[in-house]
Amino acid sequence: MPCAVFGASGYSGVELAWLLHNHPFFSLKHAYSSSAREEAEPLAGLYPQIAGQLDIILQPWHPDLLSQLAQEVRVVFLALPHEASAELAPILIKAGLVVFDLSGAFRLRDPQQHLQAYAFEQPNIGVDAIPYGLAEWTVLQGHEPLVAVPGCYPTAAALALKPLMHLVQGTPLINAVSGVSGAGRKAAAHTSFCEVSLAAYGVATHRHQPEICQSIGHPVIFVPHLGNFKRGILATIYAPLEAGTTQQDVELALQRAYREQPLVRLCHKPPAINDVVGTAFCDIHAVVHNGHVILCVAIDNLLKGAAAQAVQLANMYFDMPASTGLTGRGGVI
Amino acid sequence: MPCAVFGASGYSGVELAWLLHNHPFFSLKHAYSSSAREEAEPLAGLYPQIAGQLDIILQPWHPDLLSQLAQEVRVVFLALPHEASAELAPILIKAGLVVFDLSGAFRLRDPQQHLQAYAFEQPNIGVDAIPYGLAEWTVLQGHEPLVAVPGCYPTAAALALKPLMHLVQGTPLINAVSGVSGAGRKAAAHTSFCEVSLAAYGVATHRHQPEICQSIGHPVIFVPHLGNFKRGILATIYAPLEAGTTQQDVELALQRAYREQPLVRLCHKPPAINDVVGTAFCDIHAVVHNGHVILCVAIDNLLKGAAAQAVQLANMYFDMPASTGLTGRGGVI
Amino acid sequence: MPCAVFGASGYSGVELAWLLHNHPFFSLKHAYSSSAREEAEPLAGLYPQIAGQLDIILQPWHPDLLSQLAQEVRVVFLALPHEASAELAPILIKAGLVVFDLSGAFRLRDPQQHLQAYAFEQPNIGVDAIPYGLAEWTVLQGHEPLVAVPGCYPTAAALALKPLMHLVQGTPLINAVSGVSGAGRKAAAHTSFCEVSLAAYGVATHRHQPEICQSIGHPVIFVPHLGNFKRGILATIYAPLEAGTTQQDVELALQRAYREQPLVRLCHKPPAINDVVGTAFCDIHAVVHNGHVILCVAIDNLLKGAAAQAVQLANMYFDMPASTGLTGRGGVI
Amino acid sequence: MPCAVFGASGYSGVELAWLLHNHPFFSLKHAYSSSAREEAEPLAGLYPQIAGQLDIILQPWHPDLLSQLAQEVRVVFLALPHEASAELAPILIKAGLVVFDLSGAFRLRDPQQHLQAYAFEQPNIGVDAIPYGLAEWTVLQGHEPLVAVPGCYPTAAALALKPLMHLVQGTPLINAVSGVSGAGRKAAAHTSFCEVSLAAYGVATHRHQPEICQSIGHPVIFVPHLGNFKRGILATIYAPLEAGTTQQDVELALQRAYREQPLVRLCHKPPAINDVVGTAFCDIHAVVHNGHVILCVAIDNLLKGAAAQAVQLANMYFDMPASTGLTGRGGVI
Repeated sequence: MPCAVFGASGYSGVELAWLLHNHPFFSLKHAYSSSAREEAEPLAGLYPQIAGQLDIILQPWHPDLLSQLAQEVRVVFLALPHEASAELAPILIKAGLVVFDLSGAFRLRDPQQHLQAYAFEQPNIGVDAIPYGLAEWTVLQGHEPLVAVPGCYPTAAALALKPLMHLVQGTPLINAVSGVSGAGRKAAAHTSFCEVSLAAYGVATHRHQPEICQSIGHPVIFVPHLGNFKRGILATIYAPLEAGTTQQDVELALQRAYREQPLVRLCHKPPAINDVVGTAFCDIHAVVHNGHVILCVAIDNLLKGAAAQAVQLANMYFDMPASTGLTGRGGVI
Repeated sequence: MPCAVFGASGYSGVELAWLLHNHPFFSLKHAYSSSAREEAEPLAGLYPQIAGQLDIILQPWHPDLLSQLAQEVRVVFLALPHEASAELAPILIKAGLVVFDLSGAFRLRDPQQHLQAYAFEQPNIGVDAIPYGLAEWTVLQGHEPLVAVPGCYPTAAALALKPLMHLVQGTPLINAVSGVSGAGRKAAAHTSFCEVSLAAYGVATHRHQPEICQSIGHPVIFVPHLGNFKRGILATIYAPLEAGTTQQDVELALQRAYREQPLVRLCHKPPAINDVVGTAFCDIHAVVHNGHVILCVAIDNLLKGAAAQAVQLANMYFDMPASTGLTGRGGVI
Repeated sequence: MPCAVFGASGYSGVELAWLLHNHPFFSLKHAYSSSAREEAEPLAGLYPQIAGQLDIILQPWHPDLLSQLAQEVRVVFLALPHEASAELAPILIKAGLVVFDLSGAFRLRDPQQHLQAYAFEQPNIGVDAIPYGLAEWTVLQGHEPLVAVPGCYPTAAALALKPLMHLVQGTPLINAVSGVSGAGRKAAAHTSFCEVSLAAYGVATHRHQPEICQSIGHPVIFVPHLGNFKRGILATIYAPLEAGTTQQDVELALQRAYREQPLVRLCHKPPAINDVVGTAFCDIHAVVHNGHVILCVAIDNLLKGAAAQAVQLANMYFDMPASTGLTGRGGVI
Repeated sequence: MPCAVFGASGYSGVELAWLLHNHPFFSLKHAYSSSAREEAEPLAGLYPQIAGQLDIILQPWHPDLLSQLAQEVRVVFLALPHEASAELAPILIKAGLVVFDLSGAFRLRDPQQHLQAYAFEQPNIGVDAIPYGLAEWTVLQGHEPLVAVPGCYPTAAALALKPLMHLVQGTPLINAVSGVSGAGRKAAAHTSFCEVSLAAYGVATHRHQPEICQSIGHPVIFVPHLGNFKRGILATIYAPLEAGTTQQDVELALQRAYREQPLVRLCHKPPAINDVVGTAFCDIHAVVHNGHVILCVAIDNLLKGAAAQAVQLANMYFDMPASTGLTGRGGVI
């Protein structure tokens, strides 16, 4: 099935391009840059590591290309800035394309929360409910026009917490550390090599906080950190438990949730970032201590937290096994 | 004042040696290795970076050297394994030396807790109360035979929490990430270059958990992590507050505690590890959110969390300003 | 075709195991540890990152297993210490197995050079000439009992130099930087996280120097360096050229050599380590300047410099395209 | 002696500010930003790590400030972009100030070479010869209006080669790796955290190549590399020797050159970057092999390669010991 990636010059976009190029079912037909560049250029010009492997041209997008695109592909993946996605998605949907959107444009259900988090109004695409695609917790019918792919932090946090929310009594605290690629490819002072150093940012004000709350159905406190590594997220979560909850209760609940899920691994010791980098896995470890559950969760922010989850959702959309094309190791950047 | 360092071949030890060598009041007379080596060798043989700066011989320690040592120096710093400290400290004290011990041998007041944490019995040195030297919260008389220098994690956690405990209602959760030097200089699989990757360890079972509880007088949940950087600790602490506590209440309490303290910096944004590496500072940032205070604290684990705090205590012991000899930048390793 | 890996607990060994497990033609039947361990254990116990992907048991090797092994597999890959390979290879060959040996035991043709470099005598396996398997420059008949897989540095250096030796007049100088995985998995002081820092070692005395000389048929000066990254080798080579040699001469010679080779990429700018990490590629860039050619070459030391080259040779041995099973991205460690 | 730093917001500039602030003879009176910013701000706003240590205001520079500056200070250090230095230096000199210029504006003696390297004409400041301040090889009279501080790579290369040029016969090849701070503080794609990876750049076209040639009086081939570390330069140099030159000849020549020099250390093994980071030292190691000398040289690019060498020159200018204020450890960034 031919598909296209918008924003293929960015980190999530190039990972998407790579996954789709190597997918047994999807094939990558078009790759569009995230910004309007003057000329088409090979994607391998930006990412020399894929030369000889993925020889696609990165094209600038023009609205004139729409009708041809709609004839050639059925599925598009948007790895664009939030507002660019908000503008483009309705147009693509109207042209009959199925859209998997990796931005935050369509994730929050409450328009007020969305406006506050993203500073622009959420577009109305004329459907009742846009699926929020936390893959292991989502059922797709295969006729939705748009799927909102969750954010990286919310994926890690919600995959760990959702199976346990019936045991949780009180506010979960989510301490998460992300690799620098989470900030995107654009050069910026705070992500330049000499400036990166482990530190918290956006303390309890990050736009992923309301997304996590929505996903688990409960308020949380969320503190993201930037860490000195390229990719991966490690979240350490502290949630107060109902009196009497045991280690076994927690483990059973996690096993029940993920026994059949090929991309979640329940671990006997706390996962390291390195265990999941380059993979589509989410690794989870749980310890019950002093009335709390302490969850350690690791994902690759660009894969399970972005590109691989989008492909997983597309697999589900087209009735394939969830992990189709996602069992390799190794990302692009 | 002449002094000696035991365990000068280790990371904390060499930092101590460096600080004392450059101190305006103390002078480094002897440096002993942490293990019995066969021959004396220059400390710069192990640490070429100090060649031409700190030209002291690392000597193996023999009990026969005791009487001469006792004549030549008044103060000794022990940067030894816990059990080695436990054995040596009483001997040095008996010889009339003042001991600043950086190990965990004398930190915990409850012998049961000590036994459980360290798996050996705490020696009785025949004094009523050994000062636990969290420097900003300790008063030294100048005639104590032994001062227990706090652990690295407890220093970070307690400096942030102690000023606020009257406002805290509930269990503080301490999420901390340490650089690899915290594991010491001995080669080990989990600290080899290719294996280090951000991960939690000792979840709620680390021996620093009871030490933090003792220091702040309240139970805590403590999850340490190993991070992929050489030195520094970043602790992110979540503590539930009494109803109605405001951001201003918290800031005032912190200012009151540290207004006169030259080595604690209250910050307007979350500190990064890099802000404190190579310094004796403790950087603290506080945000009140949703009934909790979120504290970000950064120290250099080998300096404020070990060697520099020991020197700070020795400064206080001899009635010098606390930051004497501690205002530079730059560690040895 | 079923095969076995010896030394699968090491870095090259686990990469081999991974490549063979995912290979369309080979299948991994047995994985043996490099040292005699007491009990069998899952390979994923040492490498949690492959849990759920490569679920093989790491077995201790005992000579009693030989006859069964010889019935079950035809090909074995040895990722063992040099001397262990030297002892085991003749036994396996005698049992009728085809051996691809990644150690240095069978690379040097001159017994004196071998003895000097490895401090043990090269075993006589009773064949006239053991192929030295620099893959792009080797022809295999498919009935050799043993193939010596080149070292990591010699692979990088020789792939760049061999096409140009007819243009070179004088001694090539090879400046190479390797990631820390080149030193193997065993914990050691100089590869512990806090000690690694870019530095030369074994200046003009490294055992890969005679191997490079043998491979290109000319003396060289070789200075290896340890760099602060996990995997990859970057070699910068300076070779004096015959008078009048042009940029075009050099480029043509490189193109002629590698036009048909899928795993060598000739680059328009100097390759970065990151371009090849996780791949089986060798990237080469050449500049002619002031009577010299300056070659920048990058490989992944564990893949093109070890495991992937071994698989490439095995592909060739069994008449498959050289890059079969080697076109993915992503290593294990 | 009061002094001022221009370009104090940059990496070399802030190191200068720190060194001067802690210097026993100089005192930092003014710090100007490298670009015209709208408002003055504390330097510690850009560099939180120096808060509480170096509390100076970073001021925008206006020509109106000149007369006051000339009254208040005698010495200025320029850590500005090349062209900005070229414009400002003549004005400051005319106002009677002594200028230590860290840019490349005044280093090359041949106007044609300068024009080609820097793409602007070297200004004429009306003096016969501007001293090129390779500190160990320069004599200052104390009445020069301007001293050109050497570049980072040329400092490393020339300190190693100059003592040996009478033994060298042929073209020295200089392979050097610099930390990312060498590229300055401005955010750029190639120095963003996720993009940095060991690679050569500017192969034989870097503007430091003519500077090295001028400094040692002989053509060279120079290949710089960007490495994945913050600070430091490691140069590995290969120079053909006159027939019969021995290891002892080389060592004697190096000892003769640097016996009395406190900031050059001759090492018994190849130096690591880490040995010199945060110091004003240049570490040199030499091996004679097969008719060549192989030199390994390490400096901190921001200190011995920039700020510390400037202070060393200023020390010499005012008849102080060369290492005054330069014997500490630890840089700012």
